[in-house]
Amino acid sequence: MIRPDETTRAELDRIMDAAAASAPELAAMPPRTRSAGLLAVATALEQSRPELVQLAVRETGLAESRLDGELKRTIVQLKLFADVVIAGEYLDARIDEADPEFVLGPRPDLRRMLIPVGPVANFAASNFPFAFSVAGGDTASALAAGCPVIVKAHPGHPMLSALTADLVKQALRSSSFPTDSFAIVFGQVTGVELLRDDRLRAAAFTGSVRAGRTLADIAAQRPMPIPFYGELGSVNPVFVTRDAIDADRSRLAEAFIVSISGSAGQLCTKPGFLFAPADTGFEAELRLHAEKRPRERMLYPGLGHGYAHRRHEILATPGVTVIAEGSVTVDEDDQVWAAPTIVSVTADVLRSYRGRLTDEAFGPLSILVGYDSGEDLAALSRELFSGNLTGTIHLGPSEDPLRVHGLAAQLSTSTGRVIFGGWPTGVAVTPAMQHGGPYPATTNDSSTSVGTASISRFLRPVAYQDAPQKLLPEPLQDANPWSVPQKVARRGESSQWGKRFGGEQ
Amino acid sequence: MIRPDETTRAELDRIMDAAAASAPELAAMPPRTRSAGLLAVATALEQSRPELVQLAVRETGLAESRLDGELKRTIVQLKLFADVVIAGEYLDARIDEADPEFVLGPRPDLRRMLIPVGPVANFAASNFPFAFSVAGGDTASALAAGCPVIVKAHPGHPMLSALTADLVKQALRSSSFPTDSFAIVFGQVTGVELLRDDRLRAAAFTGSVRAGRTLADIAAQRPMPIPFYGELGSVNPVFVTRDAIDADRSRLAEAFIVSISGSAGQLCTKPGFLFAPADTGFEAELRLHAEKRPRERMLYPGLGHGYAHRRHEILATPGVTVIAEGSVTVDEDDQVWAAPTIVSVTADVLRSYRGRLTDEAFGPLSILVGYDSGEDLAALSRELFSGNLTGTIHLGPSEDPLRVHGLAAQLSTSTGRVIFGGWPTGVAVTPAMQHGGPYPATTNDSSTSVGTASISRFLRPVAYQDAPQKLLPEPLQDANPWSVPQKVARRGESSQWGKRFGGEQ
Repeated sequence: MIRPDETTRAELDRIMDAAAASAPELAAMPPRTRSAGLLAVATALEQSRPELVQLAVRETGLAESRLDGELKRTIVQLKLFADVVIAGEYLDARIDEADPEFVLGPRPDLRRMLIPVGPVANFAASNFPFAFSVAGGDTASALAAGCPVIVKAHPGHPMLSALTADLVKQALRSSSFPTDSFAIVFGQVTGVELLRDDRLRAAAFTGSVRAGRTLADIAAQRPMPIPFYGELGSVNPVFVTRDAIDADRSRLAEAFIVSISGSAGQLCTKPGFLFAPADTGFEAELRLHAEKRPRERMLYPGLGHGYAHRRHEILATPGVTVIAEGSVTVDEDDQVWAAPTIVSVTADVLRSYRGRLTDEAFGPLSILVGYDSGEDLAALSRELFSGNLTGTIHLGPSEDPLRVHGLAAQLSTSTGRVIFGGWPTGVAVTPAMQHGGPYPATTNDSSTSVGTASISRFLRPVAYQDAPQKLLPEPLQDANPWSVPQKVARRGESSQWGKRFGGEQ
Repeated sequence: MIRPDETTRAELDRIMDAAAASAPELAAMPPRTRSAGLLAVATALEQSRPELVQLAVRETGLAESRLDGELKRTIVQLKLFADVVIAGEYLDARIDEADPEFVLGPRPDLRRMLIPVGPVANFAASNFPFAFSVAGGDTASALAAGCPVIVKAHPGHPMLSALTADLVKQALRSSSFPTDSFAIVFGQVTGVELLRDDRLRAAAFTGSVRAGRTLADIAAQRPMPIPFYGELGSVNPVFVTRDAIDADRSRLAEAFIVSISGSAGQLCTKPGFLFAPADTGFEAELRLHAEKRPRERMLYPGLGHGYAHRRHEILATPGVTVIAEGSVTVDEDDQVWAAPTIVSVTADVLRSYRGRLTDEAFGPLSILVGYDSGEDLAALSRELFSGNLTGTIHLGPSEDPLRVHGLAAQLSTSTGRVIFGGWPTGVAVTPAMQHGGPYPATTNDSSTSVGTASISRFLRPVAYQDAPQKLLPEPLQDANPWSVPQKVARRGESSQWGKRFGGEQ
């Protein structure tokens, strides 16, 4: 296999024509068939697991065990969505019976469900070459929704992207998916052309604030704007109480260092800030554990040099004290290697250098903030951070949770996930997961890019009024051939509005 | 009462500060209290009904009976949302039990629900002075979601806006809503400042493509972009078959003329196009009924003159034949009065003047398109229209619905509501209603601005991981004090993913 060429404009045009043409067939596919396609992709990845992982190790520098776990997660995600498709709850099928005596005059028969939006672009991430790349969550959820997918490969792992795409294509074809329901394109210019293409209906992205915002603006400025689900930057603050440190300072410090340095800190949920009482001497504990960690290779040279620059900027900020210096070196292939860097600042320094210190540093660096006993942590969090994927609180084992009530409430308004006694890295793929938070964590905080709820990004509602049964999609038919949940509003129910729950009117 | 002054920058600043400050209290309010507030607003409107309707007649020129019906709908909407709040299904509460044996490693306890986004702006519409204005659907759904609302009044009915706002404020205060959970502002410049205000979290709008797109762009270009739910332009094509005309041409023509001329055609769901077989002589029937309709006053001078200009543009297009000329006159107050104008074109003329003929004409004008028996209506619809709120098909009483299968499928991908044998004007307020379609019908076709689903525009998900019960919001607590539906994923269930529904893997 050779390094894939950039996709030409003519190729992109052919791909988009074909994707648009395949959309109706894909949308109409029965759930069993669509589900079987997702399972076939899962099997194909499983069968090529050693080859995929080795290629990923070579292209990304990430550890084999980490990549193997990530591939497993990717496979599990596909299986999860195979079930979601058949369960059919995601369709949100609603049937309002006709009601000649409706309070506002005769009401027609109305039936509403979610339908696939059409071709979706998935801008793959560098830091999850499986789970947020070619066959990752965005692709799985968009295919599950019934949308053709065009992946824009990340240049950090081109060969892996090409191989994965081949596997996905073959698996889908073997399960009678339309041939053109999946495609991959290469090249930055092509990515922008893809986003501007008038046949595209939605896009998902995981990456930097700069790239993500540029693309979000392009999506918004199109003659026909489309939704852009971008996951951009997050610093995931962690707050620990004195009791939490007193309970087991060594374990707390070690777990924190593991969380910030795993995958060389190149995780969107890496905790970029640790708020701890100023006088507990926690610095020494952090230094101890940080210095035990090996250097790790960063994903690709551009990203590594970007991290080195950002790290330097933070180290050079007045009031910043180094706790663990964590070397940064460049090898003969221009790859950057980094060990964990921990610095500390006071809350006042952080306030003075908001932006310079509070913007994300994508790599194994985190900032310890020593806070005084009088500090209002909720107010501080509000002042420093606009939006994050996560916020974390560590309490002592017998501490009254109500002591952090205000902080927990603040984190719930400024993040997508509030964590107690754990670490934000390691994201469970489940129905209740929320991976998305106020800007700049994501461009659209009403959505998630992990878990079953992520499918709703690629659906939109359509209602049918007084439609003949023959022209209704299966989920809305009285016979309900796909056995999906249907929410039915009975005739006469609406006359109870405002009274049903004991209202006076 | 005097005409309200434009809101000053200082006033807006105070309003936004207060709205942001009231957001947490409003969000935490128990459902019974929030529901009671909505019912109190309904009662207040009911009690001032004669005064409100008279003021609306004076300011908008719309018929009293129409306005009375619209106010009733507005009251019913508030009652409906009072029930939605208590039912609690809209919260989408999900609980994933902790699972130490989860396939991807131990899984924490995860709980997810939708929370209010924070202060919401409602840019009121001119054409629905009740249902899409101060106390209309956008306000009702945002308050139901738990968001403070700032209405930007429409200049077409300023006194009515001020009176309605006073009633809403008093009713909410009397039901222990925070004082600043509702406000109204006046002035176009203020509206833009409101949308740019960094305390604002979402906006809803109903109006023209030009104004809506301008505001949508402002929302997208903010340092922190916010969702903008705009309902812009729609031409709502209606397709009738030969059988439908043969069955009862007079009734069909009359109902169509009523649909396009009610409220002087100033409805977002007015059918702007009627596609009928070319050789049925339906023109004469349409002329007959159109000429029976009286002139009606248009909402305000600017809108009326805009309609007159747009009508002239259509009449001056080569290939356009006048069926009913429908006079347009201007009175001494500069108000425009218009009677229905019906023109006809061939499909080829329409193709040649796409844009000039296919853009919305907001007023009592509609275009009859005579189609030949060989015409592929699905292809024609795809070629002419990008997105609409509705699409309608009329079949003969014994006609096989499958004959229009392709057209129905095309309308389901290009509109938000597909109607059979009815008319798009008159929108039922029910759980299965969808009022929103692909751009330019709306800026965000995954949402609706009518019906219970409209509440989701003002909510976003947040997940809690391993949270102490005391720190969980009520809907996620084991004790479930508000008795909301909770979807629980049991421990061990996930090991069945991909197998549960008979997958091979």
